[in-house]
Amino acid sequence: MLNKPIGITMGDPAGIGPEMLAKLLVSDTKENFRIFANFSCLEKFSGFNINFNDRRLINVQSTHSVSSVKQGIPSAASGGISYEILQRAVENCLNGNLSALLTCPVSKYAWSLAGHNWPGHTELLAHMANPKNPASVRMLLFGQELNIVLNSTHLSLKDAILGLNTASIVETAEITNLWYKKYIGDCPNILVAGLNPHNGENGLLGTEEIDVLIPAVRKISNLGISVSGPYPADTLFYSCKSNNKIPKRNIILALYHDQALIPFKLNGLDKGVNTTMGLPFIRTSVDHGTGFDIAGKQVASIKPLLASLFLTENILRERKELNENKNL
Amino acid sequence: MLNKPIGITMGDPAGIGPEMLAKLLVSDTKENFRIFANFSCLEKFSGFNINFNDRRLINVQSTHSVSSVKQGIPSAASGGISYEILQRAVENCLNGNLSALLTCPVSKYAWSLAGHNWPGHTELLAHMANPKNPASVRMLLFGQELNIVLNSTHLSLKDAILGLNTASIVETAEITNLWYKKYIGDCPNILVAGLNPHNGENGLLGTEEIDVLIPAVRKISNLGISVSGPYPADTLFYSCKSNNKIPKRNIILALYHDQALIPFKLNGLDKGVNTTMGLPFIRTSVDHGTGFDIAGKQVASIKPLLASLFLTENILRERKELNENKNL
Repeated sequence: MLNKPIGITMGDPAGIGPEMLAKLLVSDTKENFRIFANFSCLEKFSGFNINFNDRRLINVQSTHSVSSVKQGIPSAASGGISYEILQRAVENCLNGNLSALLTCPVSKYAWSLAGHNWPGHTELLAHMANPKNPASVRMLLFGQELNIVLNSTHLSLKDAILGLNTASIVETAEITNLWYKKYIGDCPNILVAGLNPHNGENGLLGTEEIDVLIPAVRKISNLGISVSGPYPADTLFYSCKSNNKIPKRNIILALYHDQALIPFKLNGLDKGVNTTMGLPFIRTSVDHGTGFDIAGKQVASIKPLLASLFLTENILRERKELNENKNL
Repeated sequence: MLNKPIGITMGDPAGIGPEMLAKLLVSDTKENFRIFANFSCLEKFSGFNINFNDRRLINVQSTHSVSSVKQGIPSAASGGISYEILQRAVENCLNGNLSALLTCPVSKYAWSLAGHNWPGHTELLAHMANPKNPASVRMLLFGQELNIVLNSTHLSLKDAILGLNTASIVETAEITNLWYKKYIGDCPNILVAGLNPHNGENGLLGTEEIDVLIPAVRKISNLGISVSGPYPADTLFYSCKSNNKIPKRNIILALYHDQALIPFKLNGLDKGVNTTMGLPFIRTSVDHGTGFDIAGKQVASIKPLLASLFLTENILRERKELNENKNL
């Protein structure tokens, strides 16, 4: 497994992706990877002199005009280029040429300008992997101190709350359980976050805990999955991080995007990686955005990218050791 | 101003309040305070031998039976006792006997069992201070690294989002501006958080940024208040804390309870204090809950209480110096 490289996509060329990849190429990282990029964009936007003979670089030519891409500004051209690069990398995952896929940030707005209306990487990858019957997928935030699975990702907050239902939470737990067993070789212990202030205070401040979350926890438990909650969200993340109450396989199940992302990012951008569970291949990504505001300023940090690459290899290594032990 | 003591309420007697106050009495803190408590509850639940001749202790007798209070369990008796104590302390604030009010945690559920249906301290204090015409108040989380004002507090998340409107956000900014000028002697710089994932991605993931938040920022700015945003919430707290981009008078305006409380608590429970802006007196509180799960176990930390007391005195001191300078 480790003999095959990890594929890395460039992300939106108008953001910090080209700069990050140029810095990765000259870093001393030992991981085995292949970069899927557009060479014209790398040359124009990375701010570095690139050695295009580096065998770790793969050129994805584009139907869009690179001259239409303006650094720092999402556009149809920038969205189209990042989409085509992703498509090529996914094909290589499905063909078995790559051991995993690590994606740099894209702009969903730029995708939509290019006619690709997807709420995020996660949903698009499920479609690309199996267009006729896309798998149910979930986002897992994998960190040194906090592990969080998201029940919903790229929905407006209103839609995430109005659409909250027991079946989806049970499915989140099932996907998490399968992924941990398949890729980590261990069962997760799931801690469900509450939705309302102070867990709804017994229904005084919202009834979703009573109507949706408590029944969901019961159903998940009946499936033989280790689970507890709901816990008041404003102390759950603090308790998990600070008090070391939570052993390694404990995963917080968060109910909406920012309930997970605010504490995860506050805890340190270079301490975590975003993983998609439910795909037929391992997929991770850095957990920051396109950085349009700092594109071209040569201040982008590659710490989050290096952390993601390191963690991706860790998952592969654990999985490889698991498989080797099975053959003993 | 500093000659008058800070009033401290016991909070719910079934929680960790009695234990915290007993520990405060034997601590070496030099602050000038008066504890409003029920002596029978202190004796029964604090786990310490209390010197009831301590002049810093004020007994609030109750119409409820202390024998009905069971440690760790919210009840009509525990809610009634915490309510009566609060009432007595507020009277002393309004009469000018106290320089400020610092409240220990109550259970809103226990209040409701006692027939007092208030969503939280904040709303009840506005009513107690002026029953005929309660002031509009807002919660401010005052910390060493993060300062956050809440647009809404004790509402279900659904109600907080469905009720989001420009007028309320403008009012939050106005209350914040007045409070800072009155008590801190400086104008705040307000940073408005976004509601939806990635700030709604130009309307793809929710339209509240476009429909409500951007117009609110424009209106606040037209009032002459320093303001900017909306900013994507998942990186705003991280940026404020980690990059030192935010000077001391910068305040994040958060749109719902957990958007503020998850990062504030994750940043450290002993690093912050909860302040109510808009009342005719200074009011602070510790930013943790009743601790029913650890009541009676003698493990409650008084660090958050000491931090709150210290910060309350800091506000009073800044205010006193401000007034003295005015007379020069």
